[in-house]
Amino acid sequence: MASAEAVFRSWNNERAIFTRKLEGIPDSLGTAVNIQEMVFGNRTPRSATGVYFTRDKVTGIKHDILDGTVLFQAQGEDVVAGIRNSLPIEALRDHADPAFHAIYEELKATGEKLEHKCRDMQDTEFTIEEVNGVPTLYFLQIRDGKRSAKAESVIAYNLVKEGILTKEEAICKVNPERFEELLFPQIEPKDRKAATMIAKGSAASPGAACGKVCFTQDEALAAKAAKEDAILVTVMTSQEDVKGMKASRGILTTTGTKVSHAAIMATAWGIPAVVGASEITIDKAAGTFSCNGHTIKRGDYITISGTTGEVYLGKVPMTVPSKLEESAQAILDWCQEIKSLDVRANAEAAETQPAFNKGARGVGLFRTEHMFLGDRLPYIQKVLFGNDKDEAKKALEAIYQFSKDDFKHSMSVMDGYGVTIRLLDAPLHEFFPHNSGLKQEENPMLGHRSVRMAITNPEIPEMQIKAILDAAAELIKEGKHPKPEIEIPLVIIAPEVKAILEIAVKVAAQVKKEQGFAVPYALGTMVETPAAAISGSEIVPALRAKVAGYDDDVHPVYGFASFGTNDLTQTTLAISRDDADRFLPLYVDKEFFERHPFISIHPAVEKMVRTFVADARAIDPKFEIFICGEHGGDVYTIGRLHEIGLTGVSMSPGKVYRSIIKAAQCQVQHPRKSVK
Amino acid sequence: MASAEAVFRSWNNERAIFTRKLEGIPDSLGTAVNIQEMVFGNRTPRSATGVYFTRDKVTGIKHDILDGTVLFQAQGEDVVAGIRNSLPIEALRDHADPAFHAIYEELKATGEKLEHKCRDMQDTEFTIEEVNGVPTLYFLQIRDGKRSAKAESVIAYNLVKEGILTKEEAICKVNPERFEELLFPQIEPKDRKAATMIAKGSAASPGAACGKVCFTQDEALAAKAAKEDAILVTVMTSQEDVKGMKASRGILTTTGTKVSHAAIMATAWGIPAVVGASEITIDKAAGTFSCNGHTIKRGDYITISGTTGEVYLGKVPMTVPSKLEESAQAILDWCQEIKSLDVRANAEAAETQPAFNKGARGVGLFRTEHMFLGDRLPYIQKVLFGNDKDEAKKALEAIYQFSKDDFKHSMSVMDGYGVTIRLLDAPLHEFFPHNSGLKQEENPMLGHRSVRMAITNPEIPEMQIKAILDAAAELIKEGKHPKPEIEIPLVIIAPEVKAILEIAVKVAAQVKKEQGFAVPYALGTMVETPAAAISGSEIVPALRAKVAGYDDDVHPVYGFASFGTNDLTQTTLAISRDDADRFLPLYVDKEFFERHPFISIHPAVEKMVRTFVADARAIDPKFEIFICGEHGGDVYTIGRLHEIGLTGVSMSPGKVYRSIIKAAQCQVQHPRKSVK
Repeated sequence: MASAEAVFRSWNNERAIFTRKLEGIPDSLGTAVNIQEMVFGNRTPRSATGVYFTRDKVTGIKHDILDGTVLFQAQGEDVVAGIRNSLPIEALRDHADPAFHAIYEELKATGEKLEHKCRDMQDTEFTIEEVNGVPTLYFLQIRDGKRSAKAESVIAYNLVKEGILTKEEAICKVNPERFEELLFPQIEPKDRKAATMIAKGSAASPGAACGKVCFTQDEALAAKAAKEDAILVTVMTSQEDVKGMKASRGILTTTGTKVSHAAIMATAWGIPAVVGASEITIDKAAGTFSCNGHTIKRGDYITISGTTGEVYLGKVPMTVPSKLEESAQAILDWCQEIKSLDVRANAEAAETQPAFNKGARGVGLFRTEHMFLGDRLPYIQKVLFGNDKDEAKKALEAIYQFSKDDFKHSMSVMDGYGVTIRLLDAPLHEFFPHNSGLKQEENPMLGHRSVRMAITNPEIPEMQIKAILDAAAELIKEGKHPKPEIEIPLVIIAPEVKAILEIAVKVAAQVKKEQGFAVPYALGTMVETPAAAISGSEIVPALRAKVAGYDDDVHPVYGFASFGTNDLTQTTLAISRDDADRFLPLYVDKEFFERHPFISIHPAVEKMVRTFVADARAIDPKFEIFICGEHGGDVYTIGRLHEIGLTGVSMSPGKVYRSIIKAAQCQVQHPRKSVK
Repeated sequence: MASAEAVFRSWNNERAIFTRKLEGIPDSLGTAVNIQEMVFGNRTPRSATGVYFTRDKVTGIKHDILDGTVLFQAQGEDVVAGIRNSLPIEALRDHADPAFHAIYEELKATGEKLEHKCRDMQDTEFTIEEVNGVPTLYFLQIRDGKRSAKAESVIAYNLVKEGILTKEEAICKVNPERFEELLFPQIEPKDRKAATMIAKGSAASPGAACGKVCFTQDEALAAKAAKEDAILVTVMTSQEDVKGMKASRGILTTTGTKVSHAAIMATAWGIPAVVGASEITIDKAAGTFSCNGHTIKRGDYITISGTTGEVYLGKVPMTVPSKLEESAQAILDWCQEIKSLDVRANAEAAETQPAFNKGARGVGLFRTEHMFLGDRLPYIQKVLFGNDKDEAKKALEAIYQFSKDDFKHSMSVMDGYGVTIRLLDAPLHEFFPHNSGLKQEENPMLGHRSVRMAITNPEIPEMQIKAILDAAAELIKEGKHPKPEIEIPLVIIAPEVKAILEIAVKVAAQVKKEQGFAVPYALGTMVETPAAAISGSEIVPALRAKVAGYDDDVHPVYGFASFGTNDLTQTTLAISRDDADRFLPLYVDKEFFERHPFISIHPAVEKMVRTFVADARAIDPKFEIFICGEHGGDVYTIGRLHEIGLTGVSMSPGKVYRSIIKAAQCQVQHPRKSVK
């Protein structure tokens, strides 16, 4: 049998793996390699070429039978290119020529050794060639094997159980971004093959979905009402389509990219979506869409895979795991223990329990404006635009009531963990009554909203803070430990903080009077404008200031800040995400950005974050700082934020898994003390 | 005669002026003051009270006759309040009782002394009271006298000629913001003759004004909000009317004198005013005023001349003085010599010569999008939205031609000085053809415009740069010394600079080939986004980079940057100026901002500026940095920028005077080396 020195030769870009020393395999691997004698695999009938994985790349299981294929009298390229139909690798074991049986055993034994040395499942390429009349095994290449999301956790978990890896090493083997796929509806490979694919777009929000084609919000809502599954098929989506989108099983758009409204919102809600399927032409009048020779009518079934971007005709079978398997849950638990970054979720009342179940500990962003969808919209319209003061007052009371119920539910689920409730934050026009005649702002992003509206309409933050503290008071009386955190959006200057602090303290004093005890709460600010980012030395003290004439215990117990990196990116780069489609794709194509700035934190935004953190921590080394923009669920960004020293990250529930795993990986690779 | 110790007693808020030592007037002035014996001015018929200025507060001239008024047997308040009609101060000189003649001479002699000690024109308040049967002069108060803009330069200039002040001291006596009043509208004698004069009062604050009659502060504010000119017509004004007065084009009162509230304040603000027009009777209930047989209704137009005290019916033509008087021009010339900040103007072709005449040396911002108004609009529409490629090409050629002509004119006027020409910078929708059906951007401020459009439509910057360099080439051949500076708007990242640099170098090489010589030019960037402001260390080197394959002499000869503080303020504070009306006034009222952020640079924006300047100057201590936002003509901001070390400021031509003067004052008060 040839020595290992002689056989490892063509690893192309895979040389890095050879820096690991293999026992019984020479140390010279990984250093410059001499020119080797050529092996062919097709010289004689007793030669062969093949590939095999040391474990099953789909299930992750270590079978007795190797996971591989072989081709007799063939070269490596033939196997990879699929030009000839290769045989299952058992063909060696079962071969009439017993010389091949020994080689099969040798493959298994070497696989075992390689796994121990490389400390991972291996994907190998080999050639068998007659040397002095004896079929002899040559390894051409080995590398860590590519595997399914499922196999990833199974292998990592088993390698720990087998004593090959520590927990810390094992969690670093898992791709955080793929972990969520473990619970998504999936189309099995066999079903994919059998299905008719009719179009392909961008894989915008993972998972598969099947339903009836709907072209409008109303159709989707009607389908939902009739307990039918809908796939919303449209050119693009906007804020106006939110109800219809949420009512759908899946979303399919003919334009847009992974950062369009449809993609962002679908990901946030965990609804499978395919966007930018440009082969599709919608004919609304006819109630059809067509693509590649197919014409699909309203109400016809289609199936989409947001994991692959594919669109299929009819109902394609899907499978949905109900919970994580043992190995995956173990990986997640280890990550929870290891990480030093807090991981919270951006969640309103309905999403809080599912987020907790996924592992989120705390709510990093409760968007109170999301309360005003549907039936609740008229209430806020009466407050903001009504002419009848009594009606406005009544509406405010109604809002107080359902707000309190929602806040209470979230704080109850997250008992003992912080629940950050952001004061109303929406551009005014989102609440405009239809045909109100009110003038749309030129640049609503930079207009009258958020804390600006709280200051022009102080009755709204007053009511919201009352609802928050009353909800907490009820929970305290039930023996719970609510941690309400009141958050001010769009702050630019310290006087805004002061104005809201005064309202909070006044309301807290009233609550204390009514309840007979003070309700502890925190007060924090979003950092989503450049002005705020560079003014930490004024804004942080404002959060911790005392309001004259009030007891200490009606003041916030701590201050905090949370980066809203969506808006911070928009203002820092002067790019409106809604309008970016006209030039941003070109910028990305030209590689003007190293990473898409609305997906991964841009260096200029990172500088803003660093400036604020430095200023805040200079005042208070334990000042709690979070991120709650979409970047909070991006693995590149989490890495940067871990290093910068954030307290925690918060993201849509759909990205909680990846964030827990990435945070733990960061801690393994760059250990830091918890910032609390 | 009473000693000076005994007479200075009630100076309220004016005590600071007494820190200057007065020769023959005791040193104890300015320190804590003992309780003094009261003087009344109304005890006996031989007592009096009066005020006088040591020079004429309207013309600045030092007359033989004092500029003042006197009231016999009266108290100081009676003079100021205008309750009784006071006499010209010559009444003392011409009095039947010769005791008053001596007092008149004493007033003149003391005025002379006070001017030498205080080194400025003085406004004095005095009382005459019998002491042992002898009318004796008491000074109640002195202070630097308020004066018209014209008097300001005349006095400052004369004080230098009289050897009392140095040039440096003299220029600091001039209020930069009022200098422009010297060229305020006036009514020509022939127009005066043709007009119908309906009343006459005192010429209280110079300049002519025409507007609609308003009787209250609210009416004046409403008129201003409706962008209409208002003339506030009222019996008298008080501190409560300040907002309405400021909102008016002119002020007309039926009572009062040149020392009444209306006169003093209007003079200070540079608002034309006529006071004491006693022929006028106001009937507020009817909403009219009447005089000499005329009845003028609320909303009717009138014209007033604060220079002559006349009130005219309707709109009377007004003319603007064509040049400064000798004293003012001398002050301006001194400032030009003294200042270290460059002062340029924001000007297109038509405004360049007037800006040069005012003293601007260089154009800091030539907005090329301003070329596309009126008849020229269809050209750019064909380029941006047309479907016919041939038509678009023809349109581009036409734009090239008139662009070149405009650029050539400006560079010719500013021969030897830099002319910064900004590449096309306008939100796309500003060029939308009417009813184009094109979708308005959600936030055009943050949309597809500026360098983003240059990158998606490179034929536009290519044409513009060709026009700039060809214009410069023509001037060079005419023996001139053009200094074209090509400016990139809305930069956020270095690759944008690189993309435009490559276009510029390519075009410069083509021009060199066509002309037989290289045309020197500079390349610079606007700094109007937070991303650019904090990325100087990447953007500055990008401006100075070399493009491979091109000669050195087709590269920019230097790089520069200019702060667009309008947009930088909008993005840093996340406030759209267009939409700010819904909350910014409240913020200003509540004093959330120390200064209005769209008038004077906000501290957060100043931090951005400092960051960029520090990064840029670390790379090149002589890197040229300007400001060309409206803040460039704000005196507070100029003070900050002088200190930060900007190369120069650029502003609308209307503010060139104030900027030259303020820049010189900064240099006197905080000397620095020129940054060039």
